[in-house]
Amino acid sequence: MNEYAILHIPDSRFCFEAEEKELVIRLRMAREDERADVSLVYACKYDFTFERQRKKMQICYSDRLYHYYEIKMKLTDVRFAYIFEIEEEGETFYYSEDGVSKTYNFEEGFYNFFQMPYLNSNDRMEVVDWMRSAVFYQIFIDRFRQGDLKKPQDYINMKWGDIPTPKSFAGGDLKGITEKLDYIRGLGVNALYLTPVFSSISNHKYDISDYMEVDPQFGTKEDLFRLVDTAHEKGIRVVLDAVFNHCSMNMRQFQDVLKKGKKSRYYDWFLIEGDYPDPEKMNYECFAACNYMPKLNTANPEVQEFLIDIALYWIREAGIDGWRLDVSDEVSHDFWRRFRKAVKAENPNCVIIGENWHDAYPYLMGDQYDSIMNYSFTKACLDYFAKGVFSAKEMADKLNGNLMRNYEQVNFMMLNLLDSHDTHRFFTEVKKDKKKLLAALALEMIFPGAPCIYYGTEICMEGGYDPDSRRCFSWEEKDWDMEVMNEIKRLTALRKNSVLQYGSVSVTAEDEMLCVKRHWQKKDVVLWINLTEKEKFVEKEPIEAEGYLILENSEK
Amino acid sequence: MNEYAILHIPDSRFCFEAEEKELVIRLRMAREDERADVSLVYACKYDFTFERQRKKMQICYSDRLYHYYEIKMKLTDVRFAYIFEIEEEGETFYYSEDGVSKTYNFEEGFYNFFQMPYLNSNDRMEVVDWMRSAVFYQIFIDRFRQGDLKKPQDYINMKWGDIPTPKSFAGGDLKGITEKLDYIRGLGVNALYLTPVFSSISNHKYDISDYMEVDPQFGTKEDLFRLVDTAHEKGIRVVLDAVFNHCSMNMRQFQDVLKKGKKSRYYDWFLIEGDYPDPEKMNYECFAACNYMPKLNTANPEVQEFLIDIALYWIREAGIDGWRLDVSDEVSHDFWRRFRKAVKAENPNCVIIGENWHDAYPYLMGDQYDSIMNYSFTKACLDYFAKGVFSAKEMADKLNGNLMRNYEQVNFMMLNLLDSHDTHRFFTEVKKDKKKLLAALALEMIFPGAPCIYYGTEICMEGGYDPDSRRCFSWEEKDWDMEVMNEIKRLTALRKNSVLQYGSVSVTAEDEMLCVKRHWQKKDVVLWINLTEKEKFVEKEPIEAEGYLILENSEK
Repeated sequence: MNEYAILHIPDSRFCFEAEEKELVIRLRMAREDERADVSLVYACKYDFTFERQRKKMQICYSDRLYHYYEIKMKLTDVRFAYIFEIEEEGETFYYSEDGVSKTYNFEEGFYNFFQMPYLNSNDRMEVVDWMRSAVFYQIFIDRFRQGDLKKPQDYINMKWGDIPTPKSFAGGDLKGITEKLDYIRGLGVNALYLTPVFSSISNHKYDISDYMEVDPQFGTKEDLFRLVDTAHEKGIRVVLDAVFNHCSMNMRQFQDVLKKGKKSRYYDWFLIEGDYPDPEKMNYECFAACNYMPKLNTANPEVQEFLIDIALYWIREAGIDGWRLDVSDEVSHDFWRRFRKAVKAENPNCVIIGENWHDAYPYLMGDQYDSIMNYSFTKACLDYFAKGVFSAKEMADKLNGNLMRNYEQVNFMMLNLLDSHDTHRFFTEVKKDKKKLLAALALEMIFPGAPCIYYGTEICMEGGYDPDSRRCFSWEEKDWDMEVMNEIKRLTALRKNSVLQYGSVSVTAEDEMLCVKRHWQKKDVVLWINLTEKEKFVEKEPIEAEGYLILENSEK
Repeated sequence: MNEYAILHIPDSRFCFEAEEKELVIRLRMAREDERADVSLVYACKYDFTFERQRKKMQICYSDRLYHYYEIKMKLTDVRFAYIFEIEEEGETFYYSEDGVSKTYNFEEGFYNFFQMPYLNSNDRMEVVDWMRSAVFYQIFIDRFRQGDLKKPQDYINMKWGDIPTPKSFAGGDLKGITEKLDYIRGLGVNALYLTPVFSSISNHKYDISDYMEVDPQFGTKEDLFRLVDTAHEKGIRVVLDAVFNHCSMNMRQFQDVLKKGKKSRYYDWFLIEGDYPDPEKMNYECFAACNYMPKLNTANPEVQEFLIDIALYWIREAGIDGWRLDVSDEVSHDFWRRFRKAVKAENPNCVIIGENWHDAYPYLMGDQYDSIMNYSFTKACLDYFAKGVFSAKEMADKLNGNLMRNYEQVNFMMLNLLDSHDTHRFFTEVKKDKKKLLAALALEMIFPGAPCIYYGTEICMEGGYDPDSRRCFSWEEKDWDMEVMNEIKRLTALRKNSVLQYGSVSVTAEDEMLCVKRHWQKKDVVLWINLTEKEKFVEKEPIEAEGYLILENSEK
C-alpha cells in the first residue's frame, strides 16, 4: 500500500456535515491501490472502545494521482469516532490519526482515532438554496446598454461599438439593464452579477469614492432600486460588487488623511508608512501598483463597521441578493468573518461570492464566504477546450481535484465561469470556434455550481485582455448568431432539472470523451463531450467532432 | 521523486505569518527524496510573471515517512506568490497548486502559483508571551490541601490520605492552595491550572450549577480573589477551568426547563427532543452518558452571551490569567470564535487552552484557542518512557510529526503534560521508575511549550485511572522523595533560559538516544535521553542507562 498517498483530515474538506446530522467522509489513496477494500470503522466516540460498526467505502472521485473514497453517514449520535480499515492482497492496514499501522489498539483509540467530536448546528455551512438553480449573467455596465438618453452625455468619449481603451466611457447604465431584463430572462438567466455601481471616476468603478451613492453615469439610487425590483418581478436575482480591499484616493476619508496626515481621524483607516501618505512615493499599501487605490485597513474595527454598514445598507434599501467580493483574498479573514455574521443575520439567502483565483478553502469553511468565482474551472476549460493541452482524461482529473477542494455545499454554490472582465473572452480563446464555445457552456450548465455567462457570450462577442474584453454589446440583431443564442437557451433551460440542482457528480473520461454524470433520486443527466476529430457514439447516438450530447435517463 | 508524498497548503500550518511580516513556509516530501535540492521560487504576487527570487530550503523536521522543509522569510511586500523547484538526479520538477510538473508556465502563474495574498495583522496569531517561560502545576482542589478548618466539615467523607472513590470528599480548598503558594513557587512553578471552582455537588465540580459563585466547599469569592492576588504577588499566574460544553442538571435554567418544558424561556438553551427533558429517557444531549450533565446549546446566542459574561466576569473580578476549556472539542467553533474575541478584548494576555486530545488544528488557526492540553505529547511519552513500544527514533518521528500539526506560535503555547486528573499517573505508568519519571520531566522542560506538572508528581504520588489519580497530597515531609523534588527544581529553573523560550527545536535520534536541541541567538540547550540499558557518552560526558544529560553551549 502506498502510505505516502493516504490522507484524511477530520473537521475539514475531508470530513464535514453536509446536511443536518449527515456527515461526509472522504479518504484519499493512491490510484495504484484501487483494488483495496476500504472500510470505515466507526462508533459514537464514547462507545468506540466497546462497540463499532463497519461500512465499505467507494471511490467517488479520481484525479491524476489519487482516488477519493467518499461515504455519507446519517448519524443519530453526532459524537463520531472512526478509523479506516484497508484490506489489500491479504493484508489488513489501519489508518488513524497516528498514520498507517498493521495493528490497531482499540482500547487506546481515544488517543488517536479520527473524530468529529460533535456536530454543532451553528458550524454547519448551509447552501443558499437559490444558487442551486441559478444561471448568472455578468454585466460590465458601461458597455451593455445606455438606457438614459437624457443624462449629461459629456463624459461619453467613445462611439458605441468602437474598440475601448482603458479610459473609454461608452454610456451604459442601470436603466439600460432594466430595459433589457426581458431579453436577459429570455436567455434563461435568473441572476445578474453587476460590476460596481457606486461613485467612481473610472469606467469600471473598482476605485470607489462614495459607497453610499450610485455613480451618476450609471443613474440614481432610484434607478438601482427599480432595476432590482423589476428584476425580482421577473424572477431574476441581483448580486452587486463589493470593493472592500481598497477604495479610491478620492474617497473623503483618504483625502482627509492626505491633508492632515497623522492628525486625521482616518489615518488608521489606511496602512501608511510615515506621517503623510504620498502618492508619488507610494508610502502606503495599495491595490497592485495603483497609488489611486489605497488599501483599506480591515484590521481597524472602525473600517470594519464602515464597510459592513455599506453591505447592509444596500441589502436593506435595494434588496439585493448577494455580494461579489473584489480582491477578497487580500482582505483579512477576521473581517470576512464579521461580514458574514452581519450579512447572514440581515438575510441568510444573501450569497457571498469571493474573488479568489486559487484554492480558497481557508475562506470557504463556513465562517466566511459561500462561494468564489471559480477561476480554476476557467483555467481547466482553457486547457481543455481552447489550448488543447488537456486530454479528456486530464480534464476529468483536474475537475475531480477541484471538486475535492471544498465541502459539497460549496460546490453547489460555486460561480463557474468561462471568462469575465478580468480575462480574455472565451470565444476569442477558442479562436471563434462556436462548437467549442457551446461545448464549454454545456459543461458549465451540467457541472455542480452556478454557471455565469459573461454578457455578449450569447452573440459571440470577441475580445482580448482588459480593456478589450469589455467591448460594447451590439443591439443590432443582424449581428447576432441565433444558432448560438438558441443553443444557450436550450442549455440554460436544463438548470431547472432537480438532478442538476441536488445530484451527485461523477466526472470521467471514456472513449476519449469527457463524461459528466449527475445523479439524483433514480434520475441521471449525462453530458458527453467529444473534442476529438472523429464522430463518436454513445447509446447509438452520434456525437460529432467537437460536439456534445446530453442524455436524460430515469431508472425503471 | 515521490509525487504522492509532496504536500503544501498555503494559508495553513504549512504557510503562516509567525511574527510581523515573517512568513514561515513548510514543504513535506518523502524521506527517500532527501538528496533533492529544494528551492522556494518567489516574488510579490504582482511581479511573479516578471521577476522572481530563489532560496534553498532545509530539512527542519522529519517523521517516519516524511521530511519537512522549512524556510522563514522576512517580507517587505506582503503579497506573496511562490512555487517550489526541486532538483533531483539531474531532473527539475516544479510544485505548484496544480501539483508536480516538469515545466512551469510562469506567464500563467497567477492561475496556479501558491500564494499568501496579503498578511493582514488581524489574522496573525500572537504568542501570549508569558506562556514561553511558564511552568504549570495542575491542582485537583479537593485533594491538595485543606486550608479552612473552620468551614462546615460535614461534607467530608474520607480521611485525608485514604484511597478515594468517585464520591469522596477530602476537604481540599482554595485557602489550602493559598497557604502553600511558597511551596509551589519553590518548585519553580509560575502558573497554576485549577480544576473547576464553581458551585457543584461533585468533588471534581465539572457539573456546575452556578458559574457565578465559588463552591462553599472550596471557599468564597474572596478566597479566590486572595488566592489569585497572592499568587500574582509571588509571580504565579492562575488559569481556571471553564466547563462550557455542559452544566449540571441542577443549574437554575435546566431546572426551569424540567418544570416548564417547551414553555420555559430556557428550553432552547439545551438540545432536547420532545416537550420536556426526561433524565430517565435521556432525551436531551449530555456529556458522555451522564444525564446529570446536560449539554449547553452554544448555537443559541443567549447561551453564548451567558457563557461569555461568565468568562469576562472572572477575568475582571478575580484577575485570572487564562481559561482551560473543558471538553472544548464538542463545543461549536462559532462559539469559540466569539469567546476569543471577547476574552482577548478584555485581556490579550489571557491564555485560552482547549481540552482537545487530538490534532486540534481547526481550533488553533488564530481565531479560537491559543493552545491545547497536549495529550498527543502525553501519549508519545507513554509509548517511549512507560511502555517501551517506541525506540528513540520512533519517539523523535512522533514528536516531529506533532510539531508539524500547528503554527510555531501554538507550539510555544502548548500545555505539555505527562498526566492529569483524566489519566493514570505517569509515575504509576512507568512502574515507579524515578529515573524514567525524571527523564520524561526533563523532556517536558526542554520541549517547546509550557510543561504542566500534575500536583504530587514531585513527591512521587501514585494512582491509576479516575478516581485513583486524584489521591490526597501528603504534607508529611517524611513521605517525600527529596531527590526527585530537587531534580524537578533544577529542571524547572532551566525554563528561565531564553533559548527555551524563543529557540528553534530539532528532535532527532542519535546513538539510540533521543536528542532535543533548542537553538537561539548562537546559544544551544541540548537534552540527551538514554533509555537503553547501557551507559552512553556525549562529548565525553557519561549518560547512565535511563539517564539524561542537558548541555548548554554557546557558539564562539
